[in-house]
Amino acid sequence: MTSRSYGQKHCGVARTLDMIGERWTILVLRDLFLHGPRRYQDFQESLAGVPPNTLSARLKTLEGHGLIERKLYSERPPRLEYHLTAKGRSLGPVLQVMREWGRRHA
Amino acid sequence: MTSRSYGQKHCGVARTLDMIGERWTILVLRDLFLHGPRRYQDFQESLAGVPPNTLSARLKTLEGHGLIERKLYSERPPRLEYHLTAKGRSLGPVLQVMREWGRRHA
Repeated sequence: MTSRSYGQKHCGVARTLDMIGERWTILVLRDLFLHGPRRYQDFQESLAGVPPNTLSARLKTLEGHGLIERKLYSERPPRLEYHLTAKGRSLGPVLQVMREWGRRHA
Repeated sequence: MTSRSYGQKHCGVARTLDMIGERWTILVLRDLFLHGPRRYQDFQESLAGVPPNTLSARLKTLEGHGLIERKLYSERPPRLEYHLTAKGRSLGPVLQVMREWGRRHA
Protein backbone atom coordinates (compact mmCIF):
# COMPACT_ATOMS: atom_id res chain seq x y z
CA MET A 1 0.00 0.00 0.00
CA THR A 2 2.77 2.44 0.85
CA SER A 3 5.32 3.21 -1.84
CA ARG A 4 8.17 3.07 0.66
CA SER A 5 7.97 -0.43 2.08
CA TYR A 6 10.91 -1.75 4.03
CA GLY A 7 10.69 -4.88 1.93
CA GLN A 8 11.10 -7.30 4.84
CA LYS A 9 7.92 -9.30 4.72
CA HIS A 10 9.16 -11.87 7.23
CA CYS A 11 9.63 -9.31 10.02
CA GLY A 12 6.68 -8.26 12.17
CA VAL A 13 8.38 -5.00 13.13
CA ALA A 14 8.99 -4.03 9.48
CA ARG A 15 5.43 -4.97 8.53
CA THR A 16 4.05 -2.78 11.30
CA LEU A 17 6.29 0.09 10.17
CA ASP A 18 5.10 -0.37 6.58
CA MET A 19 1.61 0.50 7.84
CA ILE A 20 2.24 3.07 10.55
CA GLY A 21 5.91 4.06 10.27
CA GLU A 22 5.60 7.20 8.17
CA ARG A 23 6.04 10.59 9.79
CA TRP A 24 2.83 11.88 11.51
CA THR A 25 0.89 8.63 11.10
CA ILE A 26 1.18 7.52 14.72
CA LEU A 27 0.11 10.96 15.95
CA VAL A 28 -3.03 10.76 13.79
CA LEU A 29 -3.84 7.46 15.49
CA ARG A 30 -3.00 8.91 18.91
CA ASP A 31 -5.53 11.72 18.34
CA LEU A 32 -8.23 9.20 17.46
CA PHE A 33 -7.47 7.16 20.58
CA LEU A 34 -7.47 10.27 22.79
CA HIS A 35 -10.40 12.19 21.32
CA GLY A 36 -12.56 9.72 19.40
CA PRO A 37 -13.85 10.63 15.92
CA ARG A 38 -12.05 13.61 14.37
CA ARG A 39 -12.57 15.88 11.40
CA TYR A 40 -9.78 16.83 9.02
CA GLN A 41 -9.50 20.29 10.57
CA ASP A 42 -9.21 18.79 14.05
CA PHE A 43 -6.04 17.02 12.94
CA GLN A 44 -4.74 20.21 11.37
CA GLU A 45 -5.16 22.01 14.68
CA SER A 46 -3.65 19.39 16.94
CA LEU A 47 -0.80 18.38 14.60
CA ALA A 48 0.76 21.80 14.29
CA GLY A 49 3.30 21.74 11.49
CA VAL A 50 1.87 18.92 9.35
CA PRO A 51 1.64 20.03 5.69
CA PRO A 52 -1.94 19.60 4.36
CA ASN A 53 -0.82 17.33 1.52
CA THR A 54 1.00 15.12 4.00
CA LEU A 55 -2.00 14.92 6.31
CA SER A 56 -4.28 13.96 3.43
CA ALA A 57 -1.82 11.32 2.25
CA ARG A 58 -1.49 9.83 5.75
CA LEU A 59 -5.26 9.63 6.17
CA LYS A 60 -5.59 7.91 2.80
CA THR A 61 -2.88 5.40 3.64
CA LEU A 62 -4.45 4.61 7.02
CA GLU A 63 -7.81 4.16 5.34
CA GLY A 64 -6.23 1.94 2.68
CA HIS A 65 -4.77 -0.28 5.39
CA GLY A 66 -8.18 -0.55 7.05
CA LEU A 67 -7.03 1.19 10.22
CA ILE A 68 -9.42 4.15 9.98
CA GLU A 69 -12.62 4.86 8.10
CA ARG A 70 -14.52 7.97 7.03
CA LYS A 71 -18.14 8.48 7.99
CA LEU A 72 -20.62 11.17 7.01
CA TYR A 73 -21.89 12.87 10.14
CA SER A 74 -23.88 15.53 8.28
CA GLU A 75 -25.68 15.24 4.95
CA ARG A 76 -26.26 18.93 4.30
CA PRO A 77 -23.66 20.23 4.11
CA PRO A 78 -21.79 16.94 3.66
CA ARG A 79 -19.29 16.57 6.51
CA LEU A 80 -16.90 13.73 7.16
CA GLU A 81 -15.17 12.48 10.23
CA TYR A 82 -12.55 9.80 10.74
CA HIS A 83 -12.99 6.82 13.06
CA LEU A 84 -10.72 4.01 14.19
CA THR A 85 -11.73 0.60 12.87
CA ALA A 86 -11.40 -2.53 15.01
CA LYS A 87 -8.05 -3.14 13.33
CA GLY A 88 -7.00 0.43 14.16
CA ARG A 89 -8.05 0.00 17.79
CA SER A 90 -5.91 -3.11 17.98
CA LEU A 91 -2.90 -0.76 17.81
CA GLY A 92 -3.73 0.51 21.30
CA PRO A 93 -0.96 -1.48 23.02
CA VAL A 94 1.64 -0.11 20.57
CA LEU A 95 0.72 3.48 21.41
CA GLN A 96 0.48 2.66 25.09
CA VAL A 97 4.06 1.38 25.39
CA MET A 98 5.34 4.32 23.33
CA ARG A 99 3.55 6.73 25.67
CA GLU A 100 4.95 5.05 28.77
CA TRP A 101 8.46 4.95 27.40
CA GLY A 102 8.29 8.61 26.34
CA ARG A 103 7.15 9.68 29.77
CA ARG A 104 9.96 7.82 31.48
CA HIS A 105 12.85 8.49 29.13
CA ALA A 106 12.41 11.62 27.04
CA MET B 1 18.53 16.32 19.04
CA THR B 2 16.63 15.65 15.84
CA SER B 3 15.97 18.58 13.54
CA ARG B 4 12.43 17.39 12.87
CA SER B 5 10.81 17.30 16.28
CA TYR B 6 7.05 16.98 16.51
CA GLY B 7 7.16 19.87 18.97
CA GLN B 8 4.72 18.29 21.44
CA LYS B 9 6.77 18.11 24.59
CA HIS B 10 3.79 17.17 26.75
CA CYS B 11 3.02 13.99 24.82
CA GLY B 12 4.88 10.76 25.60
CA VAL B 13 4.11 9.34 22.17
CA ALA B 14 5.52 12.40 20.36
CA ARG B 15 8.61 12.39 22.59
CA THR B 16 9.27 8.74 21.78
CA LEU B 17 8.83 9.47 18.07
CA ASP B 18 11.26 12.38 18.33
CA MET B 19 13.90 9.84 19.34
CA ILE B 20 13.04 6.76 17.29
CA GLY B 21 10.40 7.87 14.75
CA GLU B 22 12.62 8.51 11.75
CA ARG B 23 12.63 6.05 8.88
CA TRP B 24 14.99 3.03 9.47
CA THR B 25 15.72 3.90 13.11
CA ILE B 26 13.53 1.21 14.64
CA LEU B 27 14.98 -1.43 12.31
CA VAL B 28 18.50 -0.50 13.47
CA LEU B 29 17.35 -1.10 17.04
CA ARG B 30 15.62 -4.33 16.03
CA ASP B 31 18.90 -5.65 14.58
CA LEU B 32 20.73 -4.87 17.81
CA PHE B 33 18.05 -6.65 19.85
CA LEU B 34 18.07 -9.68 17.54
CA HIS B 35 21.79 -10.04 16.87
CA GLY B 36 23.65 -8.19 19.63
CA PRO B 37 26.56 -5.87 18.75
CA ARG B 38 26.71 -4.97 15.05
CA ARG B 39 29.19 -3.31 12.74
CA TYR B 40 28.24 -0.64 10.24
CA GLN B 41 28.46 -3.12 7.36
CA ASP B 42 26.18 -5.57 9.19
CA PHE B 43 23.45 -2.92 9.15
CA GLN B 44 24.10 -2.23 5.49
CA GLU B 45 23.58 -5.90 4.70
CA SER B 46 20.45 -6.48 6.74
CA LEU B 47 18.77 -3.14 5.95
CA ALA B 48 18.73 -3.55 2.19
CA GLY B 49 17.83 -0.24 0.63
CA VAL B 50 19.04 2.15 3.33
CA PRO B 51 21.20 4.90 1.78
CA PRO B 52 24.65 5.05 3.47
CA ASN B 53 24.22 8.71 4.47
CA THR B 54 20.88 7.89 6.06
CA LEU B 55 22.30 4.95 7.98
CA SER B 56 25.17 7.09 9.31
CA ALA B 57 22.76 9.84 10.32
CA ARG B 58 20.45 7.40 12.13
CA LEU B 59 23.35 5.85 14.04
CA LYS B 60 24.57 9.32 15.07
CA THR B 61 21.10 10.34 16.24
CA LEU B 62 20.65 7.14 18.23
CA GLU B 63 24.07 7.66 19.81
CA GLY B 64 23.18 11.29 20.57
CA HIS B 65 20.05 10.17 22.40
CA GLY B 66 22.09 7.69 24.43
CA LEU B 67 20.30 4.67 22.97
CA ILE B 68 23.36 3.06 21.39
CA GLU B 69 27.11 3.41 21.82
CA ARG B 70 30.17 2.65 19.73
CA LYS B 71 32.94 0.42 21.07
CA LEU B 72 36.32 -0.46 19.62
CA TYR B 73 36.57 -4.20 19.25
CA SER B 74 39.92 -4.16 17.49
CA GLU B 75 42.81 -1.70 17.95
CA ARG B 76 44.79 -2.61 14.83
CA PRO B 77 43.12 -2.05 12.48
CA PRO B 78 40.67 0.10 14.48
CA ARG B 79 37.21 -1.46 14.21
CA LEU B 80 33.98 -0.26 15.75
CA GLU B 81 30.78 -1.97 16.65
CA TYR B 82 27.49 -0.61 17.94
CA HIS B 83 25.86 -1.74 21.19
CA LEU B 84 22.55 -1.00 22.86
CA THR B 85 22.86 1.03 26.06
CA ALA B 86 20.62 0.34 29.06
CA LYS B 87 18.35 3.13 27.81
CA GLY B 88 18.26 1.50 24.38
CA ARG B 89 17.43 -1.89 25.88
CA SER B 90 14.52 -0.27 27.70
CA LEU B 91 12.84 0.05 24.27
CA GLY B 92 12.42 -3.74 24.19
CA PRO B 93 8.68 -3.64 25.02
CA VAL B 94 8.05 -1.11 22.22
CA LEU B 95 9.62 -3.40 19.63
CA GLN B 96 7.93 -6.44 21.13
CA VAL B 97 4.40 -5.07 20.74
CA MET B 98 5.20 -3.86 17.21
CA ARG B 99 6.45 -7.35 16.32
CA GLU B 100 3.37 -9.04 17.75
CA TRP B 101 0.99 -6.64 16.03
CA GLY B 102 2.78 -7.04 12.69
CA ARG B 103 2.59 -10.81 12.89
CA ARG B 104 -1.12 -10.75 13.59
CA HIS B 105 -2.28 -7.98 11.27
CA ALA B 106 0.05 -7.44 8.35
